[in-house]
Amino acid sequence: MYDEQSILAVKGAATHERSPATTAFAQVRDTTLSLARPLSAEDCQVQSMPDASPTKWHRAHTSWFFETFVLATHLPDYQPFNPRFALIFNSYYQGAGPQFPRHLRGTLGRPTCAEIAAYRRHVDDAVMRLFEQHLDRAPDAAALIEVGLEHERQHQELLLTDIKHALAQNPLQPAYRELSFAPEGETSPLRWRSFSGGVYRIGHSDPNDGFAFDNESPRHSVFLEPFALADRPITNREFLTFIDDGGYDDPRWWLSLGWDTAQREQWRAPLYWHPHPEGWRTFTLAGPRPLHLDEPVCHLSFFEADAYARWTGARLPTEAEWEVACADLPLDGNFLETQAFHPHPARQTPSNALRQTFGDVWEWTASPYTPYPGFEPWSATLGEYNGKFMCNQFVLRGGSCLTSGDHIRSTYRNFFAPQARWQCTGLRLAR
Amino acid sequence: MYDEQSILAVKGAATHERSPATTAFAQVRDTTLSLARPLSAEDCQVQSMPDASPTKWHRAHTSWFFETFVLATHLPDYQPFNPRFALIFNSYYQGAGPQFPRHLRGTLGRPTCAEIAAYRRHVDDAVMRLFEQHLDRAPDAAALIEVGLEHERQHQELLLTDIKHALAQNPLQPAYRELSFAPEGETSPLRWRSFSGGVYRIGHSDPNDGFAFDNESPRHSVFLEPFALADRPITNREFLTFIDDGGYDDPRWWLSLGWDTAQREQWRAPLYWHPHPEGWRTFTLAGPRPLHLDEPVCHLSFFEADAYARWTGARLPTEAEWEVACADLPLDGNFLETQAFHPHPARQTPSNALRQTFGDVWEWTASPYTPYPGFEPWSATLGEYNGKFMCNQFVLRGGSCLTSGDHIRSTYRNFFAPQARWQCTGLRLAR
Amino acid sequence: MYDEQSILAVKGAATHERSPATTAFAQVRDTTLSLARPLSAEDCQVQSMPDASPTKWHRAHTSWFFETFVLATHLPDYQPFNPRFALIFNSYYQGAGPQFPRHLRGTLGRPTCAEIAAYRRHVDDAVMRLFEQHLDRAPDAAALIEVGLEHERQHQELLLTDIKHALAQNPLQPAYRELSFAPEGETSPLRWRSFSGGVYRIGHSDPNDGFAFDNESPRHSVFLEPFALADRPITNREFLTFIDDGGYDDPRWWLSLGWDTAQREQWRAPLYWHPHPEGWRTFTLAGPRPLHLDEPVCHLSFFEADAYARWTGARLPTEAEWEVACADLPLDGNFLETQAFHPHPARQTPSNALRQTFGDVWEWTASPYTPYPGFEPWSATLGEYNGKFMCNQFVLRGGSCLTSGDHIRSTYRNFFAPQARWQCTGLRLAR
Amino acid sequence: MYDEQSILAVKGAATHERSPATTAFAQVRDTTLSLARPLSAEDCQVQSMPDASPTKWHRAHTSWFFETFVLATHLPDYQPFNPRFALIFNSYYQGAGPQFPRHLRGTLGRPTCAEIAAYRRHVDDAVMRLFEQHLDRAPDAAALIEVGLEHERQHQELLLTDIKHALAQNPLQPAYRELSFAPEGETSPLRWRSFSGGVYRIGHSDPNDGFAFDNESPRHSVFLEPFALADRPITNREFLTFIDDGGYDDPRWWLSLGWDTAQREQWRAPLYWHPHPEGWRTFTLAGPRPLHLDEPVCHLSFFEADAYARWTGARLPTEAEWEVACADLPLDGNFLETQAFHPHPARQTPSNALRQTFGDVWEWTASPYTPYPGFEPWSATLGEYNGKFMCNQFVLRGGSCLTSGDHIRSTYRNFFAPQARWQCTGLRLAR
Repeated sequence: MYDEQSILAVKGAATHERSPATTAFAQVRDTTLSLARPLSAEDCQVQSMPDASPTKWHRAHTSWFFETFVLATHLPDYQPFNPRFALIFNSYYQGAGPQFPRHLRGTLGRPTCAEIAAYRRHVDDAVMRLFEQHLDRAPDAAALIEVGLEHERQHQELLLTDIKHALAQNPLQPAYRELSFAPEGETSPLRWRSFSGGVYRIGHSDPNDGFAFDNESPRHSVFLEPFALADRPITNREFLTFIDDGGYDDPRWWLSLGWDTAQREQWRAPLYWHPHPEGWRTFTLAGPRPLHLDEPVCHLSFFEADAYARWTGARLPTEAEWEVACADLPLDGNFLETQAFHPHPARQTPSNALRQTFGDVWEWTASPYTPYPGFEPWSATLGEYNGKFMCNQFVLRGGSCLTSGDHIRSTYRNFFAPQARWQCTGLRLAR
Repeated sequence: MYDEQSILAVKGAATHERSPATTAFAQVRDTTLSLARPLSAEDCQVQSMPDASPTKWHRAHTSWFFETFVLATHLPDYQPFNPRFALIFNSYYQGAGPQFPRHLRGTLGRPTCAEIAAYRRHVDDAVMRLFEQHLDRAPDAAALIEVGLEHERQHQELLLTDIKHALAQNPLQPAYRELSFAPEGETSPLRWRSFSGGVYRIGHSDPNDGFAFDNESPRHSVFLEPFALADRPITNREFLTFIDDGGYDDPRWWLSLGWDTAQREQWRAPLYWHPHPEGWRTFTLAGPRPLHLDEPVCHLSFFEADAYARWTGARLPTEAEWEVACADLPLDGNFLETQAFHPHPARQTPSNALRQTFGDVWEWTASPYTPYPGFEPWSATLGEYNGKFMCNQFVLRGGSCLTSGDHIRSTYRNFFAPQARWQCTGLRLAR
Repeated sequence: MYDEQSILAVKGAATHERSPATTAFAQVRDTTLSLARPLSAEDCQVQSMPDASPTKWHRAHTSWFFETFVLATHLPDYQPFNPRFALIFNSYYQGAGPQFPRHLRGTLGRPTCAEIAAYRRHVDDAVMRLFEQHLDRAPDAAALIEVGLEHERQHQELLLTDIKHALAQNPLQPAYRELSFAPEGETSPLRWRSFSGGVYRIGHSDPNDGFAFDNESPRHSVFLEPFALADRPITNREFLTFIDDGGYDDPRWWLSLGWDTAQREQWRAPLYWHPHPEGWRTFTLAGPRPLHLDEPVCHLSFFEADAYARWTGARLPTEAEWEVACADLPLDGNFLETQAFHPHPARQTPSNALRQTFGDVWEWTASPYTPYPGFEPWSATLGEYNGKFMCNQFVLRGGSCLTSGDHIRSTYRNFFAPQARWQCTGLRLAR
Repeated sequence: MYDEQSILAVKGAATHERSPATTAFAQVRDTTLSLARPLSAEDCQVQSMPDASPTKWHRAHTSWFFETFVLATHLPDYQPFNPRFALIFNSYYQGAGPQFPRHLRGTLGRPTCAEIAAYRRHVDDAVMRLFEQHLDRAPDAAALIEVGLEHERQHQELLLTDIKHALAQNPLQPAYRELSFAPEGETSPLRWRSFSGGVYRIGHSDPNDGFAFDNESPRHSVFLEPFALADRPITNREFLTFIDDGGYDDPRWWLSLGWDTAQREQWRAPLYWHPHPEGWRTFTLAGPRPLHLDEPVCHLSFFEADAYARWTGARLPTEAEWEVACADLPLDGNFLETQAFHPHPARQTPSNALRQTFGDVWEWTASPYTPYPGFEPWSATLGEYNGKFMCNQFVLRGGSCLTSGDHIRSTYRNFFAPQARWQCTGLRLAR
């Protein structure tokens, strides 16, 4: 689109000369670039609802993040690209100055995508200088760069969910890009896997175990009653049974706030589903497509996930149950890296081992997003990253097909408001 | 006001002839009547905000509750007073038919207070017939009558908080009734009481232990880290220090949603506080009055309680911590029965024993209102009583000066939205 | 209701001793009293929408009007009943101090109806003293008393339309009082009466011709093209044809703003009409009743009146056309004094003389409410009475069955927003 | 920007071969193209408020207009560029199918600017074919093409006012393009020009007199009292006196609806004025700039214009007065063609002849926008062009510095809601 080159190309250095940290930085930054590549400047400008942001804003905000939290404090003589950009690209950090109203981000035609590309290059160059000066080996700087990369991976997912929302609202139903979808197949019946009760340890333990957000700590004990989890997420086929049983018309299954929301918003199916003479259709990043029944159901609010679970006589898992059950499972799955950009059907297996815990769809848990016992937010302004949102949000676990596989782990706590539907969100039953 | 007589008087039966259940019923119903007595018909009609209801609505709704959940199913040949009243006095029970929009309750001039008095007598008479026929000894009926009485006790508290809100909005600043306030006195410094960590049992255990709402069960295990609770609630004097330190202007102390709410609503102090040349004044059920600094701070939102706690470097207790700490404390305190209708200053004590845990002010906890593990809502339509509100609310514990002492217990879980301020809500610190 | 006595009774003076001005004052004030008499204190408290006011507020505001604009300036040593009442009962006079938010009037339980009755008596007594001291013969005072009486007549009509709205929203569909309706009858076919074009004079000419509001002056010339008016208002039967022809579903007939409003508010018929298995029903001050097809259609917005006219190929008259056509017609009709409280069917006549121009239903004109050339508002704060509303309102002419016959004249300009429907508003065609 | 060429260039035909109609078409279409040229694709995507539209939408909608109202009916075998574009580019014509919600126009990233450029070429080519086939000599087609060109001229002005609004909201305060402003100079004192009363003829008379919109007809008689108009519009200097006199704080000068709006929106000065340590600044299409005191005041709502006039003891002219006074004045002024894109100060003159009646700033009149007597909307769907907006709008006269000089005439009736401020709107006093 805008004539933008990969950092790797720009820097020209041979791969073997680069440190792993440099490589990681370059790869994350390049991924953002490649995700925006199928989009026109006009697409990158669009904000289709207050909760979403323009693609170009994501691209600039992630650069502002490095500028503000890494370069300004750790690179001597760093000159900001444009000091007034903070007025636009500070998302919500009160400690970093005023913020432009979120719902108006789409009204800012300037800076253009090309200017933002230059902004990114300016920041990339500065971070590269920081690497060259080995300043990244200072623990503080290294940690902050890592935060910046994880932050950018989060925005890569948001970039995709936000543009999907924008494209879906367009009567022309345009595609983000072509995709190849997994073939149809039979999903095995839902099986349950049991776990015994008792005191468990959850949460992230040790900085040496790798990166984690502040909200995943401290590691602590929880008492769990015996429980069981379904071996796979609920499929579209299963969710359709709920719809056909009048699930959206029966207040018995719904939380009061969920019922009010569903009535007011006239929800009749998950987001992006549309009735069609030949059966349900859903909107994907490749445009509209007949609903594939064996895929995990996606784009559910917490309210719908919870109502479905209650209708089956089961419930959603708590986040502690989920983490205990998944702590030792391998971190592989259908992530951003597969470039499927869409959930896969569950693979058939003979056992009741948990499947699709990572990737495909985020799984709503029954747990409101609260601080762990002894939670300490990161220091200074970065303390606003997670802690101040611990109210009226629910935790999701496991990542989705739009999450970078490098970004996820069993202790990871994603969170959204219970009415949010535009993320790749599904559910797994518990009992 | 409207020519209304106590059930006891009406029934005329000598006290020694009455069963304890009959007496309890008569006392609760009479209390509602006496709480409404200082109010004119016009006062009883007022709804000053969507969250509040008119006094007369409370009086009728509690009668509709007995009619619907006790009389209709357990008193043979019961004739409803007016079958169309359900269109107006069903609060939120989807299983009991449609509901009149809550925010318009104040627009219903009919039935009048006098008609509602007749409605109450009609219901009282029918319940008395049920007692006389010993049908209340049938376990189901007895349990439902008990639910109806606890329900009415809840509405007695709401009747008072709702009318306080209405009177406070009136430029004439009228009083509900005259009150005698506790004398000023010095509050002892805040002391901490420590509790060891480990697995504890919380929740209501056994129906034989007396009444509890469904949301208090089942009794279950929780793991707690070691913790400490303040020996008394925070006072007005202490909260003023937060205000004077710019607490309402500093986003560092606030949850994001709390900050947005406080800015939008222009909160500068707890609800009902008003600056005055001679110092802060607060609105009480006896009208405006200089702020008494040693009283527990009251009419705080969760957001303000949480911000205050963060400012001190402490936090709010979880509901499990609160219950563990208070489980064995005596259930006495400044309740509705004292007729103070206002929180008392803490009594001085030499020890750091927890004080004012029951009565005076509800204490916000850090716990979102969620189902206990294995929670089963009551059956049928009464299952809507508590369970469907388990979203975006926070638990409060301990009761207030407007709560009936007969209504409270250590397992009791009250819940309100984090922005709610019109209840008698304060805080106790934890760490 | 509240033990209230007529001024005439209170004053006890024999009728022959009273001046015409005294009698007029007493009669107007007594009419307000009698209109409120069928209502309970609870009814009088109700405000069913922001545009409406509680009965008791109308009763107090009209007294505040006399207090503020007559007594405060013309009765020496007048003591206000309660100086703080202005905080509540000042409607919209910026020059008279702050105003309590209009949409919250129904939340003010105090003063009670009884206190307002005492307030009225206090004001009545003071005005009577002013009469006794012959101060009313001072032209200023006399003029202001007359304004106060016309003002109170306006509020008498609003009192009725506001309580009708409140009763209509109540699922119990209660009546204001019993009414006897005119018998059914055939309406004669619509006939047209033609008027020649040219320069006409409209507006109120001369204070000696009797009272008029400032907005009716000055008398001035207008040029009119030849025009014709229908001899009677449109009936329910005629309006039903529009509905049955899909009038509410066809944007061709509607102004853009009207179409948007009708869609958003889901208008399918005039206000208070409800479909019923046995045909349309309408809500009257006597409760629900089958629609009488020969009555003039009532409770139309300007948008509906305009759409109906366009559908017929005709249009609404301008206010100048209406005034020219009606200037010489007798001022009789179905007014408040008939106590019908409901429009009458048109009487059959052999001629095409204009009928029902006065009374029955206000007639929407095509004229936005604007100042006449050379318009001068009344002086000082009373200048806010009419002039400041000359924006986004349309003129209605002729009075309704709820208007006092003493209040109306051919130059009278009533005005409401084009979406307003709760007044007794119908239409007469022009072409 | 997007590689777009002028029609003239594309067509390559020598000028002398082209008919005047062809030339006019090419010039208007090229003007739109040149107005968009300084803007990036991102700028063209922005919608900064519901009343505004993205630049690219204006470009496409004007093409859709030709396609729908000219080509579809008059060019045999015309193939629409994309039949689904009507879902997006139909503005408000109910007769032409459903409309995409106006306030969401900025959320449509597709079609891109480049696709819209292709769309325009497709339409241009088709209209050229129509010209070549001399079908434009058919009176219907010729008339419709003329409507299409006038329509596009209206959108040229909107394109500029909409992008000005978008740029002004941006904290970076970017410019549309560089401009050269008129030098400062002294404005002569306000002088009055008198007109005698009587019956005048206004409105557009005869199709042979050139194009006019349906709302300018029929020509008809009005009666006017003697009146006087100020010889020039009010300047910034004069308006500042109103501000400095507390005009925005004094409800006496304001219509009730205007006062409410000004308070709610916190108006303290005309739109785009900002206080600055060195005096007021205003935002122009060249970015922020010190306020030039001798320029006509611009970006006023009707409410502010009306309040200013009342404060001076004068009033706004009616549209009839304006037209009578200006009917014979030459149609020259500071229009779009001067490329000033900003109002000029009034030239000094010795006489009291009316100046700046055309161009510079639209002049609010006191006249609500209503149909002229005997008004007939254009037939079929084009009848929706003007007629359905005749409610709650006020008429403006004379055109502005952003209006094409070819587009304006003395009978021209522009109209906007009284709170609208983003057009180039000023005022001229009358008395």
